[in-house]
Amino acid sequence: MSEVSPPALSLPRYLVEQAVATALEEDLGGVGDITTNAIIPPDAQGDASIIVRKPGVIAGLDLAAASFKSLDPDVRFTRIVEDGSKVEAGATIARIAGKTRALLTGERTALNFFGRLSGIATLTAGYVAAVEGTHAKIVETRKTTPGLRALEKYAVRCGGGTNHRFGLYDAVLVKDNHIAAAGGLAEALNAVRTAVGHLVKIEVEVDTLDQLEEVLRFPIGAVLLDNMDVGTLKRAIALVKGRAITEASGGVTLENVGKIAKTGVDLISVGALTHSARSLDSSLEWKGS
Amino acid sequence: MSEVSPPALSLPRYLVEQAVATALEEDLGGVGDITTNAIIPPDAQGDASIIVRKPGVIAGLDLAAASFKSLDPDVRFTRIVEDGSKVEAGATIARIAGKTRALLTGERTALNFFGRLSGIATLTAGYVAAVEGTHAKIVETRKTTPGLRALEKYAVRCGGGTNHRFGLYDAVLVKDNHIAAAGGLAEALNAVRTAVGHLVKIEVEVDTLDQLEEVLRFPIGAVLLDNMDVGTLKRAIALVKGRAITEASGGVTLENVGKIAKTGVDLISVGALTHSARSLDSSLEWKGS
Amino acid sequence: MSEVSPPALSLPRYLVEQAVATALEEDLGGVGDITTNAIIPPDAQGDASIIVRKPGVIAGLDLAAASFKSLDPDVRFTRIVEDGSKVEAGATIARIAGKTRALLTGERTALNFFGRLSGIATLTAGYVAAVEGTHAKIVETRKTTPGLRALEKYAVRCGGGTNHRFGLYDAVLVKDNHIAAAGGLAEALNAVRTAVGHLVKIEVEVDTLDQLEEVLRFPIGAVLLDNMDVGTLKRAIALVKGRAITEASGGVTLENVGKIAKTGVDLISVGALTHSARSLDSSLEWKGS
Amino acid sequence: MSEVSPPALSLPRYLVEQAVATALEEDLGGVGDITTNAIIPPDAQGDASIIVRKPGVIAGLDLAAASFKSLDPDVRFTRIVEDGSKVEAGATIARIAGKTRALLTGERTALNFFGRLSGIATLTAGYVAAVEGTHAKIVETRKTTPGLRALEKYAVRCGGGTNHRFGLYDAVLVKDNHIAAAGGLAEALNAVRTAVGHLVKIEVEVDTLDQLEEVLRFPIGAVLLDNMDVGTLKRAIALVKGRAITEASGGVTLENVGKIAKTGVDLISVGALTHSARSLDSSLEWKGS
Amino acid sequence: MSEVSPPALSLPRYLVEQAVATALEEDLGGVGDITTNAIIPPDAQGDASIIVRKPGVIAGLDLAAASFKSLDPDVRFTRIVEDGSKVEAGATIARIAGKTRALLTGERTALNFFGRLSGIATLTAGYVAAVEGTHAKIVETRKTTPGLRALEKYAVRCGGGTNHRFGLYDAVLVKDNHIAAAGGLAEALNAVRTAVGHLVKIEVEVDTLDQLEEVLRFPIGAVLLDNMDVGTLKRAIALVKGRAITEASGGVTLENVGKIAKTGVDLISVGALTHSARSLDSSLEWKGS
Amino acid sequence: MSEVSPPALSLPRYLVEQAVATALEEDLGGVGDITTNAIIPPDAQGDASIIVRKPGVIAGLDLAAASFKSLDPDVRFTRIVEDGSKVEAGATIARIAGKTRALLTGERTALNFFGRLSGIATLTAGYVAAVEGTHAKIVETRKTTPGLRALEKYAVRCGGGTNHRFGLYDAVLVKDNHIAAAGGLAEALNAVRTAVGHLVKIEVEVDTLDQLEEVLRFPIGAVLLDNMDVGTLKRAIALVKGRAITEASGGVTLENVGKIAKTGVDLISVGALTHSARSLDSSLEWKGS
Repeated sequence: MSEVSPPALSLPRYLVEQAVATALEEDLGGVGDITTNAIIPPDAQGDASIIVRKPGVIAGLDLAAASFKSLDPDVRFTRIVEDGSKVEAGATIARIAGKTRALLTGERTALNFFGRLSGIATLTAGYVAAVEGTHAKIVETRKTTPGLRALEKYAVRCGGGTNHRFGLYDAVLVKDNHIAAAGGLAEALNAVRTAVGHLVKIEVEVDTLDQLEEVLRFPIGAVLLDNMDVGTLKRAIALVKGRAITEASGGVTLENVGKIAKTGVDLISVGALTHSARSLDSSLEWKGS
Repeated sequence: MSEVSPPALSLPRYLVEQAVATALEEDLGGVGDITTNAIIPPDAQGDASIIVRKPGVIAGLDLAAASFKSLDPDVRFTRIVEDGSKVEAGATIARIAGKTRALLTGERTALNFFGRLSGIATLTAGYVAAVEGTHAKIVETRKTTPGLRALEKYAVRCGGGTNHRFGLYDAVLVKDNHIAAAGGLAEALNAVRTAVGHLVKIEVEVDTLDQLEEVLRFPIGAVLLDNMDVGTLKRAIALVKGRAITEASGGVTLENVGKIAKTGVDLISVGALTHSARSLDSSLEWKGS
Repeated sequence: MSEVSPPALSLPRYLVEQAVATALEEDLGGVGDITTNAIIPPDAQGDASIIVRKPGVIAGLDLAAASFKSLDPDVRFTRIVEDGSKVEAGATIARIAGKTRALLTGERTALNFFGRLSGIATLTAGYVAAVEGTHAKIVETRKTTPGLRALEKYAVRCGGGTNHRFGLYDAVLVKDNHIAAAGGLAEALNAVRTAVGHLVKIEVEVDTLDQLEEVLRFPIGAVLLDNMDVGTLKRAIALVKGRAITEASGGVTLENVGKIAKTGVDLISVGALTHSARSLDSSLEWKGS
Repeated sequence: MSEVSPPALSLPRYLVEQAVATALEEDLGGVGDITTNAIIPPDAQGDASIIVRKPGVIAGLDLAAASFKSLDPDVRFTRIVEDGSKVEAGATIARIAGKTRALLTGERTALNFFGRLSGIATLTAGYVAAVEGTHAKIVETRKTTPGLRALEKYAVRCGGGTNHRFGLYDAVLVKDNHIAAAGGLAEALNAVRTAVGHLVKIEVEVDTLDQLEEVLRFPIGAVLLDNMDVGTLKRAIALVKGRAITEASGGVTLENVGKIAKTGVDLISVGALTHSARSLDSSLEWKGS
Repeated sequence: MSEVSPPALSLPRYLVEQAVATALEEDLGGVGDITTNAIIPPDAQGDASIIVRKPGVIAGLDLAAASFKSLDPDVRFTRIVEDGSKVEAGATIARIAGKTRALLTGERTALNFFGRLSGIATLTAGYVAAVEGTHAKIVETRKTTPGLRALEKYAVRCGGGTNHRFGLYDAVLVKDNHIAAAGGLAEALNAVRTAVGHLVKIEVEVDTLDQLEEVLRFPIGAVLLDNMDVGTLKRAIALVKGRAITEASGGVTLENVGKIAKTGVDLISVGALTHSARSLDSSLEWKGS
Repeated sequence: MSEVSPPALSLPRYLVEQAVATALEEDLGGVGDITTNAIIPPDAQGDASIIVRKPGVIAGLDLAAASFKSLDPDVRFTRIVEDGSKVEAGATIARIAGKTRALLTGERTALNFFGRLSGIATLTAGYVAAVEGTHAKIVETRKTTPGLRALEKYAVRCGGGTNHRFGLYDAVLVKDNHIAAAGGLAEALNAVRTAVGHLVKIEVEVDTLDQLEEVLRFPIGAVLLDNMDVGTLKRAIALVKGRAITEASGGVTLENVGKIAKTGVDLISVGALTHSARSLDSSLEWKGS
């Protein structure tokens, strides 16, 4: 993980602030943490650490920090590791010191962000490790949690993956339905090439080698090889001969991703990275407790 | 599943509309679906069905319907089953007819909601089935996806579970840190009882039978028995003798939940329901394709 | 008033910030305070105090402070008393020093919050004083100002009252219409008990002793004794014998609340606390003017 | 009341929709009306009427209607009277028919808007009646509920009053502090006249006849005669001789407003209209109940 | 330009913050500046200046400063000149020092605000210069960019203009259609005078001298002389004799505005100020580059 | 213009609705159109047409229609031409029939959108016409109006242009500062290629032919030839030999764009399209008036 380039691991500040504000409102409603407010004196100070109970790759520390700082701007949040780091079970990730109320009230929000994003980063890193030695990159799909796409794509980057398109607006992916509606591949590609800007790449989805051969008669940026077995994938990549970026998709698992990567495919997209990752088990440990 | 009372399975309209609006904006950006808009004529009509590829329990049809209707108010969305229904792999869940553009553009947003919520409902239903024959109820925790708590709690209800508190604002849960800060259990309970309203219930977390005995000297609504093994749980429930609702928490899995339920505990809370559910595998099938 | 536990008197920061932002936008529109901006030099400094012209109980100082600080982050807002304090006519509540523009422009917004919430706190404290010596608590209803419920419920707490449910979502209140629609009390209670979580309390509204007797055959959390005269209330409370929390409601005034409290009822809910409180008369006094 | 010109009694649609959305979210949270949803079948139909228990002037029917229609777009809301109408105790104001759930869930939100705005309209109408036969108009001040200013100013219009400025942005009101900071009245007026547009009127506040005489040496739109007794007011109006609109302010009550009006003053501003009106007592009556 | 009164040149803070937040979100989407984040180290520091390539009048420095500070709160933004200043081509307007990432990422947003508002201020100042020596004021119209009206009206003030009404809500402008619908001018004026507050001025639009004569029989605040040639304007102003503010409108250009001003008209409204101004050409110059 | 492919000319519904809501709130404030509401009966019906006074290319009809429909959902808005159409001076663009209030109140908002976007479309079409016969495409820059980028880019498409990147998030543009900070072009390109997804294209800005030669040693998607004269541009394009898309930028005018296009460059980016377009002169004509 150490070779992940940290400069690219950044999130716009407003995304962090908006996400944390939404999450805290959801948890606090109109009264706040009634247990804590009734019991803990406003000025009591506390110390705690975020630790992980399982090994994993870290993502979401900005969100965890903002969860506490939104409640007490004077909280000191000290990172022991940075997003993108691989850690062992039991590792301490960050120390938090400030008003006890802020620590108790912000705990769940901080951990919900941290656990979820680290879960995605960890699963991504698992796939990335499984393709080590090949040149294949692991990418996520648009099967993200509604409202959290930008954060989840960030977690994929933390895990060593790279990002597919962000939405329907920033790249073209031509599928069966489009080709059928256009009256043919040539017509579909022509329509789309005319309509979109010069910095927008076009990718076309194919299910068979016959479709692939037809597609390769046109200049396109990438080809999505959907649900092909490893043998077919190999033949597909041989056909492409570097004329387009190749992406394998469909039925990818931690078990078969290594074999898929060895076909020489450029990208492997994995829906599970975002739709089925388990949260990384983490908790807040109180100093002295 | 048929005995799930449908009247309780409802979501406020504005939650559905806001969630769908957020998700569509995320996917459409400032231009919309550039592939579809370039290729598909604005008035072309299409027909498709939502089907599931795995067995499961359905949740989120309001959100799926709204995903398409936000793009084309004239879309006809016909439910074959309702939220809370148990379905087999391959089952058709709903039919959608309307502008092809709306169907292609809304597909991913609709399925992201449907798959995620149905995944939670399905996992919940698995736990509910595993405790059948006992009187234990399955409840989720506050380990929900930031921003989606209300929807995920709804999915838990669809799966036959019931809901724990919605946030820090609507019920009291007194933990170790609170008791230590208050200078004792009596002080903590007194402070909180004075501060909160008569309709707010108080639950106290205990780790040991000794703590439980102390807690039971006070009138409380519920007791959270944290991380106890089955033998300890049994003794705890015997101690309580119905004076408080009992909740088991910590380390619950599909494998051990049945045994936990047989201790006679009232509630079993399962963080995994929301933090680690896998999406229910589903897709849009086009008529004729 | 001095025995009001301060820890419970707190409002989530984001509620304060959102409410003040909304109020300032409403007063400033797209140009700001055109009188002040045309006349007062940007760097002129001023000093003023919030004083009250009538005796009362204070609520809303966070909102008053934020009204000025949103306009000039360097304003010094010094509290002489805290929310929940009882003060005499003429008392100085807080001192404000900073840019004269911020003081002049923020004055009305600060006083609108402060006067309104202190008005509610003062009226509440009047009811609380009138039941002194009994164990009855004063609670508000859902007859709050649209958009300000959380703030108004906070003001009730400042006045020594406690809060009823926050909305239709956090507690159950079964009324006539529900019972009729369900086909009977047993059916209604059964439906609702099945649907809601274990931390949600159930209260049932009754108009007569006969209804009360029927209700008491079920385990419920609280009973709302609606519009009963003092004699009937006494008999009702005797019937309940501590099996449920008792709440008196309807036609409560400062004149009769003492007698109602002496019936031994647990709670008295008063709609007027929020729907008909008069603002506490207050103003900004300028140093040297 | 019948002479109130209905065309002017209108509110922008978006204000109504936003206010109702905010209020419903506040009452419904993330689950909705848990009592009603558990008990009332989704398709049950109901019939009810809004009635008033006290005489008054009506305001806010658009908001009441929208409260129900937001929950069930098919609700039929039939007005018996219109905003601005004077009604007797017991009068039926509107009939509502639609899903029972929508009626039960929307009831409190609808009545909170209706009662509050009608309370303001009623109090305003009381002041308007008390100055009948004079040419004085009754206006409110900026002492409005934060967030509801536009609605409350509308209610004043419904009660037969007219509106003072909407905020600090749409008219100039020069006060003592401004004059002192500017180094004199001439300087203050010159600064403001240069800065503001030609459609912005300038009003100056005076406390004494001496100040008034100085002010009258300048061309201004209106003069605020603050806290003057009736004798002083008369002399002030004689001094003005129609060269500016005259406004009396401070200490106005239902008892003294008639005498103030008879001084010949053009406007009387009454803070109590918005800061201390009591809600008009109203309720939902169910057909057959 | 030096005589522009600086105190009036101010914008509410929240307008600046909201506008900048919206603009940055538009430019950063869910990932931020992918070029800069990939290449520039997070802690690299940079220095740059805003310079103008053409002569002009400056407006929008608050927005430029906020564009950088939103990305890096520690950015130092040093103004060389203030809004409202006239500057030569090549002038340095402000210096910015802080994280290189913030400077590169915020550059376009800062310049988009600065260039657009300065363009309006510059065009306004051109009209203001062209009427020098007359008493005519230059005002904009409601032909502003949707969503930016308050900012654009501010820019007009920076250029030495004054503001017409802010919207349909703060002043009355009676046009042909209104008069026709009301059944005559008297009826229209009466309806409107009854409905609006005492601080709202009434302006009436006329196309001919005949209409003007009719209008002058009523007490109105201002008259809009629409599309009259210079000769007719002169006769109109003679007819008005100071009984109302006079505004010339329609077909005003930099070429003819001087002649129009010499008719003695009070105000000249120019739609082009906001609907057709060209951005002031400006750029960020990097120190050492 | 007739060859503009209509399918691509579409805007997400929510963008239209949000933009119109913002613009109407800005114009209506808290009271609405006080002139129209005071004078025009609520049920009066009117008929009008949008006409243009100058020739141009149309853009923004969805926004114009929504401006009226937001005020009266029953307005009939009939398009005579569609967005992207070239029209003559005096042409009728659309007919609007509905409540007179809605027509009068919505007029300015509708025309502000229509005029501004049509102005951009018209200017774009002028550039497109000037390069006819070459294969050069006209694209806009990021010098758009803050908050309106998506709408303005749509207008460019209506005028026959194509879109450059939407923001800093969807494509890479490497400039001098990036290269200097990275320590060389190779380092910059390597950093960015590692960080971004496979569908993100990389463009590099060069000022000289020397820089271009260096850049061409790397595989990049596009090269921005900044501020080169026509002779240099020709040599640059000869150097590129089709290995990258070529974009000319800087100092482009209607006068020189034809010559630039004849160099064989692929794209010509023109900041003026969005930062300095004049609104297309248009108005609402009333039937019978």
